[in-house]
Amino acid sequence: MPGNTFGQLFRISTWGESHGESIGVVIDGCPAGLPITAEEIQKELDRRRTGQSKVTTTRKEPDRIRILSGVFQGKTTGTPLAMMVENADADSSKYELIKHLYRPGHADFTYDKKYGFRDYRGGGRSSARETVGRVAAGAIAKKLLARRKIKVFAYTRQIGDLVMQSFSQKEIENNIVRCPDKKMAEQMVQAILQARKDGDSLGGVIEVVAKGVPAGLGEPVFDRLDADLAKALMSLPAVKGVEVGIGFEAARLRGSECNDVFIAKNGKITTKTNNAGGVLGGISNGNDIVLRMVVKPTSSINREQDTVTQKGRKSKIRVEGRHDPCVAPRAVPMAEAMVALVLIDHLLRQKQAQL
Amino acid sequence: MPGNTFGQLFRISTWGESHGESIGVVIDGCPAGLPITAEEIQKELDRRRTGQSKVTTTRKEPDRIRILSGVFQGKTTGTPLAMMVENADADSSKYELIKHLYRPGHADFTYDKKYGFRDYRGGGRSSARETVGRVAAGAIAKKLLARRKIKVFAYTRQIGDLVMQSFSQKEIENNIVRCPDKKMAEQMVQAILQARKDGDSLGGVIEVVAKGVPAGLGEPVFDRLDADLAKALMSLPAVKGVEVGIGFEAARLRGSECNDVFIAKNGKITTKTNNAGGVLGGISNGNDIVLRMVVKPTSSINREQDTVTQKGRKSKIRVEGRHDPCVAPRAVPMAEAMVALVLIDHLLRQKQAQL
Amino acid sequence: MPGNTFGQLFRISTWGESHGESIGVVIDGCPAGLPITAEEIQKELDRRRTGQSKVTTTRKEPDRIRILSGVFQGKTTGTPLAMMVENADADSSKYELIKHLYRPGHADFTYDKKYGFRDYRGGGRSSARETVGRVAAGAIAKKLLARRKIKVFAYTRQIGDLVMQSFSQKEIENNIVRCPDKKMAEQMVQAILQARKDGDSLGGVIEVVAKGVPAGLGEPVFDRLDADLAKALMSLPAVKGVEVGIGFEAARLRGSECNDVFIAKNGKITTKTNNAGGVLGGISNGNDIVLRMVVKPTSSINREQDTVTQKGRKSKIRVEGRHDPCVAPRAVPMAEAMVALVLIDHLLRQKQAQL
Amino acid sequence: MPGNTFGQLFRISTWGESHGESIGVVIDGCPAGLPITAEEIQKELDRRRTGQSKVTTTRKEPDRIRILSGVFQGKTTGTPLAMMVENADADSSKYELIKHLYRPGHADFTYDKKYGFRDYRGGGRSSARETVGRVAAGAIAKKLLARRKIKVFAYTRQIGDLVMQSFSQKEIENNIVRCPDKKMAEQMVQAILQARKDGDSLGGVIEVVAKGVPAGLGEPVFDRLDADLAKALMSLPAVKGVEVGIGFEAARLRGSECNDVFIAKNGKITTKTNNAGGVLGGISNGNDIVLRMVVKPTSSINREQDTVTQKGRKSKIRVEGRHDPCVAPRAVPMAEAMVALVLIDHLLRQKQAQL
Repeated sequence: MPGNTFGQLFRISTWGESHGESIGVVIDGCPAGLPITAEEIQKELDRRRTGQSKVTTTRKEPDRIRILSGVFQGKTTGTPLAMMVENADADSSKYELIKHLYRPGHADFTYDKKYGFRDYRGGGRSSARETVGRVAAGAIAKKLLARRKIKVFAYTRQIGDLVMQSFSQKEIENNIVRCPDKKMAEQMVQAILQARKDGDSLGGVIEVVAKGVPAGLGEPVFDRLDADLAKALMSLPAVKGVEVGIGFEAARLRGSECNDVFIAKNGKITTKTNNAGGVLGGISNGNDIVLRMVVKPTSSINREQDTVTQKGRKSKIRVEGRHDPCVAPRAVPMAEAMVALVLIDHLLRQKQAQL
Repeated sequence: MPGNTFGQLFRISTWGESHGESIGVVIDGCPAGLPITAEEIQKELDRRRTGQSKVTTTRKEPDRIRILSGVFQGKTTGTPLAMMVENADADSSKYELIKHLYRPGHADFTYDKKYGFRDYRGGGRSSARETVGRVAAGAIAKKLLARRKIKVFAYTRQIGDLVMQSFSQKEIENNIVRCPDKKMAEQMVQAILQARKDGDSLGGVIEVVAKGVPAGLGEPVFDRLDADLAKALMSLPAVKGVEVGIGFEAARLRGSECNDVFIAKNGKITTKTNNAGGVLGGISNGNDIVLRMVVKPTSSINREQDTVTQKGRKSKIRVEGRHDPCVAPRAVPMAEAMVALVLIDHLLRQKQAQL
Repeated sequence: MPGNTFGQLFRISTWGESHGESIGVVIDGCPAGLPITAEEIQKELDRRRTGQSKVTTTRKEPDRIRILSGVFQGKTTGTPLAMMVENADADSSKYELIKHLYRPGHADFTYDKKYGFRDYRGGGRSSARETVGRVAAGAIAKKLLARRKIKVFAYTRQIGDLVMQSFSQKEIENNIVRCPDKKMAEQMVQAILQARKDGDSLGGVIEVVAKGVPAGLGEPVFDRLDADLAKALMSLPAVKGVEVGIGFEAARLRGSECNDVFIAKNGKITTKTNNAGGVLGGISNGNDIVLRMVVKPTSSINREQDTVTQKGRKSKIRVEGRHDPCVAPRAVPMAEAMVALVLIDHLLRQKQAQL
Repeated sequence: MPGNTFGQLFRISTWGESHGESIGVVIDGCPAGLPITAEEIQKELDRRRTGQSKVTTTRKEPDRIRILSGVFQGKTTGTPLAMMVENADADSSKYELIKHLYRPGHADFTYDKKYGFRDYRGGGRSSARETVGRVAAGAIAKKLLARRKIKVFAYTRQIGDLVMQSFSQKEIENNIVRCPDKKMAEQMVQAILQARKDGDSLGGVIEVVAKGVPAGLGEPVFDRLDADLAKALMSLPAVKGVEVGIGFEAARLRGSECNDVFIAKNGKITTKTNNAGGVLGGISNGNDIVLRMVVKPTSSINREQDTVTQKGRKSKIRVEGRHDPCVAPRAVPMAEAMVALVLIDHLLRQKQAQL
């Protein structure tokens, strides 16, 4: 069973390799009648694209989106919506030199094991470039959610040891690390630049919030909303952990501290606290959905590392491609896209819960 | 799209409610020819069953498994393998009294929102009792894995503030909290008993390890092995976070610290460290798979809590059913089952990767 | 990928063997709030059960349905609805004698090839007994359809050379072959009894009609309504062909004869004729859905036939179990069930077509 | 649940509209390591393309295939294989004139009902042009099958009243109607040209044969090989019926005539006759798979027909686009593609049947 498709009712399938001629996505299950333009999608892609700031890779991909099908007279038709982006600035020469070596932290070795060989140029299919399709599809998911007054946004919470100390939503897109704490953002930028200078990289934590999600989304018992969200985020490159609401902190709490007590507010039932992160028994409870994911420090670093050749001989490697010294800033729109995709999928699934 | 089915090629569907007449599971996709007995499955169920020790709920469910189909002359036939357990000790009387109240931390409110009404007896479908079917199916998955020399085991790593300090695998099943650190296990038992005495409950962290997993399992880009594992664990009751390998610690590391350097060992390529937790680019690399999940403190506590009625009126609730003061000990076999189910599924999926 | 599940949103999974201890079905995706009783389901099972008349097998299965989960206070809860029937009158002795022989027309040989061995008692999983679960699930599908004023019924159109000449709907359930032509029904009964006397069997054609189906059901391009219906009927035992509307007759017509001209009737757009059988481009057009399926003559006949042993040695076989001399009469409720299951599935799927 | 994807393990998703900028397909699940070139795929597309002979539509689509991903160094990588064809000769002007009218026999009305509006140019998504993606994917399926010595071919058996009387396989691609009976082929050509002259169209019957299929393919009980084949063929445009082996003729036979007696031949178990068409109990038995499908006469005819407007007012329509007067000749490669896709899917699925 192939694994390049995500979602049940709003279903996306991505295709393409880092240095192939193009990459893309097909959405199946987008309801008919949604007004959509390439420009709206482009906006989201621009937030994820390379070369957008001094803390990202210098590969220059304009990532111009083309809508190939599924839109007629400016509206979705209900039939598959295919989108494509050309790979413009792929430089495979660096990869020719190291094609017999396994880059630490990368999928070179595991792809060889799985498929018997691999497209070694830029990581091939395992490249984060694949997420172009996710973000493009996520832009449409976000637009659908907006019609239901649901808003998804994410931000950088932590980079290395630096953890945000204050929160200002409007600050997020005002700085190049996408941190809601302006002061901390500046320190994060410096830390990233220093890491790059050191031929090294940094990890981080992204937080995602969805506001306006109605109670009732999520399918017990396996396709719980939080289980699907966990899978969605964990399927992003470099992610090593996901938590919802109070998360790992829950281990240290007692039930009387962790339980969110029910209250009535403006005639609506809600909870006093939101340790649950908006999900009870796998189903949304109407509160904000709150999730966090950790991204490991970029595996490609500009310094010599030990490794082996495909044949298992000891060797040294220096990965000279163009890389993000920290993936967090560009992972923010990716995380938003994945959460938006899960939410729209479950909104559609919820339609059949009752007669 | 209904959500009571898990897996693609080794596919399980669970059914049943906490206080219904019985609960069960249907496995579709189990290869033909596997010798299996009810006793082997029973063993795993006994590890998850209620009333097994002084730190678990006092509900006494014998959980005798019946194999209804799919086995002939002691071997699986390749056709659906249905299993069932009767609910013997369901006592719904306590739930009649609180059926109009929403228990904090539980799915009462969200099920009402999703379905319009709910089976309020013992939590109905949202009860952890549903995991009987998972553990039964997991027993078969484990047996299939054992034929490939793959072994999955889990243990309690943390309860409240108590974190294990040493590891002895044989110790795990020797104590009732399933902690590989004998000394810490004793403290954990005391802490749980104290919490129950206080009318309260404790959270914890479970670690799962899979040994012998061959390199090559996992389907890029969405059905990554770690993404499917994250979903599997997050779909268990009370779980609020999942991490693989180094997990959230990765945020604080630099690439040069986090990368697992490739080495050759006995003619086989492996890595020097295992920060990755056995997964690179979503595909197993032949190292131990290492995961952790956090369980929140049991929501049902034997003390008065604020809440509201279904109509939103303020009220008080005391949940008097029989509950585990900490779900960690019984969550150990559940976590093993889920990881085993994901692994066998991906082993089958891997068969088609190459010509 | 296992094949014992049918449907996307209203999804059924059947399990069980002909001579196992019981057989059953799990429905996942039934909306919450539908009032349902075991009696309503029993009614449909009684139409399919063995021993109901002199033209069916003499195996006496009461087929008492038990609802195991998914119904609370008389209404569906939205969670999996499991149902089970015990196998009461299984007599495996006849099968012991022929377990090394391949019965012509049966799946003995192919199951051996697929799975390496087989449950030879009564055909095991390949027995038409498996359809108990389908008919039980179909009863619920029918009830859901009835709320939308959709009615599905089927009847025997042909047995051997005898083709119905007139149509009276109320006649269908008045005779034991379920033919809407009373006179022809009598001849059909005689033909069946004669065939049994001859140690032989007869084939037939079943027609299924669905009335009240709204326009718009069916998903282009693969999950067309007619494609899903074709699969549904072809998945029934003994079916060798399916046609919709004008069917194979279309080969001989010209476009000007075959096209159904659009007209307006009572302010509603419809077509003058219904050669299409209610489906245009894979989507229902509001007309009656009309389908036919052919069932081959029962493979088990009470006379000596040539065959081979499992090792390929020449042998003779006489199949002495209890069999229907013609499967058509009991195939009528099976066909209705399958069509009802497809329709309810597509009704649910249609909910997402538009914003 | 969207319906533009076909197959479980070898999974294709088509996208695109008749007059959009391009159309395409994504294959997910193609094993790694298959050598494949665009030329091999082009060959199959050339058999399906418009304007290939005097009996097809005059729309001139070169249908040049581009492989966008999933192939590296001439071999499949195991990751999604995306392919695309530009729409070159789309002329939408004729459709502007009739966009408010419902063409009899077409999906205009049903798409409006389903989606609220439609891309009316050339039938949009409902156009047979969508099958470009199927045939391209089918070419790869055929190549995979060839490695297992499985060969799929189809031919025109009947057009109007003209039924083939002799069979010569090499004749099939020697005439423009793809009939294995040379003499009859000539008559068929004349009949089609006459129908076009009359402003009318003809229906026909296609037969598909798969040779070399091993015993054991097909998943009981729903995903039977014949059920999946029936769905595959029924999902092609204009198909109104499907039969396997003896097909509808089975209604008239007795069991003693219809049963295929088992024999041993060259140490291999097979059957004396092949009324079953190669499938027993939904599983292949090693014989030739034999199927037939009927295609209705092309709905677009060059004469005035009654119809209604979108608002339901009486009107007349003359469909002036460029159309095949009989779809059978071009449906031959489409039918082959669909059967090849089902077979490769079930070959992959069969890998997990036994330990």
